[in-house]
Amino acid sequence: MSARRYAPLPDPFAMHLGGTLKGARVAFETWGSLAPAKDNAILVFTGLSPPAHAARSPADPSPGWWDAMIGPGLALDTDRWFVIVVNSLGSCFGSTGPASDNPATGERYRLDFPELAIEDIASGGHAVLQSLGIERADTVLGPSLGGMVVLAFAQRFPGAARRLVSVSGSQGAAPFAIALRSVQREAILRDPAWRNGHYAPDAPPRTGLALARKLGTITYRSAGEWQQRFGRGRIPGRAHAANSFAPEFGIEGYLEAQAAKFVEAFDANCYLYLSRAMDRFDLGPLAARCVERALVIGVETDILFPPDGQRAIVATLERAGVAAGLVVLPSIEGHDAFLVDIPRFSAAIGDFLRAD
Amino acid sequence: MSARRYAPLPDPFAMHLGGTLKGARVAFETWGSLAPAKDNAILVFTGLSPPAHAARSPADPSPGWWDAMIGPGLALDTDRWFVIVVNSLGSCFGSTGPASDNPATGERYRLDFPELAIEDIASGGHAVLQSLGIERADTVLGPSLGGMVVLAFAQRFPGAARRLVSVSGSQGAAPFAIALRSVQREAILRDPAWRNGHYAPDAPPRTGLALARKLGTITYRSAGEWQQRFGRGRIPGRAHAANSFAPEFGIEGYLEAQAAKFVEAFDANCYLYLSRAMDRFDLGPLAARCVERALVIGVETDILFPPDGQRAIVATLERAGVAAGLVVLPSIEGHDAFLVDIPRFSAAIGDFLRAD
Repeated sequence: MSARRYAPLPDPFAMHLGGTLKGARVAFETWGSLAPAKDNAILVFTGLSPPAHAARSPADPSPGWWDAMIGPGLALDTDRWFVIVVNSLGSCFGSTGPASDNPATGERYRLDFPELAIEDIASGGHAVLQSLGIERADTVLGPSLGGMVVLAFAQRFPGAARRLVSVSGSQGAAPFAIALRSVQREAILRDPAWRNGHYAPDAPPRTGLALARKLGTITYRSAGEWQQRFGRGRIPGRAHAANSFAPEFGIEGYLEAQAAKFVEAFDANCYLYLSRAMDRFDLGPLAARCVERALVIGVETDILFPPDGQRAIVATLERAGVAAGLVVLPSIEGHDAFLVDIPRFSAAIGDFLRAD
Repeated sequence: MSARRYAPLPDPFAMHLGGTLKGARVAFETWGSLAPAKDNAILVFTGLSPPAHAARSPADPSPGWWDAMIGPGLALDTDRWFVIVVNSLGSCFGSTGPASDNPATGERYRLDFPELAIEDIASGGHAVLQSLGIERADTVLGPSLGGMVVLAFAQRFPGAARRLVSVSGSQGAAPFAIALRSVQREAILRDPAWRNGHYAPDAPPRTGLALARKLGTITYRSAGEWQQRFGRGRIPGRAHAANSFAPEFGIEGYLEAQAAKFVEAFDANCYLYLSRAMDRFDLGPLAARCVERALVIGVETDILFPPDGQRAIVATLERAGVAAGLVVLPSIEGHDAFLVDIPRFSAAIGDFLRAD
């Protein structure tokens, strides 16, 4: 069962950095009911890899990636809000991307997909609003890559959202984050199975994708959390083997499990496009009062989107006359805290949404 | 010209975790003069990859990795001290390791090299002292991996050094550091050119080694330093290319340059052995007063060997009755600060060595 719906993009759709898409679409899911005045929509963009299926619903009861945040009485309270979650343009869960068929050739786009920018993902979300007849969202919200997208959305579509919530996002990646993503991409590019993008769907560059995901997992969490969870514990039943370089520590087993799931779920070319788009995003100034109010949330232990970057976002919003609050949470889970430290994120986001 | 000298290991040499080496040796270099009483030696162990050539000398005027620290009037003052720097057992710059010929076969050891432990590297340094007729070093000192080795040295050879200096070291790696090294090793292991360790010397797994080094370089520095040095600057002359995943940002060019140097200099199998030895090292208690005094230096921005690990070393030393000072420096260069922030490291180490 799927709760997935689709919104068409303008046809042809002009990409931010050049090139066009024909017959492109964006996948999304919704929770709650759109009010008759169409004034209760919360538009959510995701991080790099999740699908639009952020939470269970009658139409799709399978677990979502933000089940604890979206639902009746939860922070994104579906008794009040109409929550829309968008699969990023360029991703591989229903939205058009490098793994989609190019209508001009009938073959997958692969590297013929035009260059992807964070701004294009924002446009994809805007197209979803238009397809639903929503002129203005109450709030546009996004974590991680989605935190970049909401800023691009405010810039490209001033007034199209009343409020903005950036969660562990960035207005322009720091060189440390670029360096990490560069190594992740290179792990894929150097995998012989990548074949310059021309791998068969059932023979993806698993080795490179797994390495990229392992490195991602390392940077998504924090040293302190892993000390608590894993310490120097070994994988149960895995004896110390002389001269073995196989995983032996608990933390290595955790990385293996995370990578194994990802390799089966995500497309390598989409990963490359989305990853590079994050590097290249560089917001620039916002239009005056592009949104009315904003909340910027960061996490003290986030090494990928660190607190100083959150303060920079607030400064950019304030220069545009936007009342912007900053919350830097003491969660130990690093960049991924929004997926894990639900009490703190529920409180911060819920309070903001409930206030006028 | 080489200033390299060699000390034989006991023959056969029993490795800490089993297995033996025959005809093994350790390479070292020295600066300054050994006093008639043989009481002025400083024994230095290195980080993972440097050779024993830490500084210029008449016999080898090529640049060393710690030129600014070793010499007349410098922190390791060669007018007073006889400085000995050891190439780690298991490395590939003169000491016996996986890239050395196995006398039993006449072929390289490769993965037939016995399992390597940090304790074996300590024994290699002890053998150098013995070959020079030095019963007791004044000070044993080491940065990074060498900071692990000096603790193992104090444990295995109580009384063989009067003082100890651990620089950005560890008494047992945290899961965050293990995770990063695990990914570095996997990049090598998954490179088809690695060939299960049986690559030809002129056809090493360059891709895997380069990825490992890039990731290492990322973790050896800090986000703050790179923000200052690189920001979001582009590689000069490298235009933005649509759909290119080639290096484009200045930080990516820096990683490329670092990796290119490393790939030509270091042996992949040696890297795997030394890296795994760092993961597995877990000090345990020290003998009472194994050294008289100790200095533990860490760096606030070091994400690989962070300050809490430095405090743990001090606690272990104090439990053994060793007077141990702790200095946590505010350098922005992260783990590698000992190579770069010479003023601060000179002051901390020089003051300690000059005191009784």
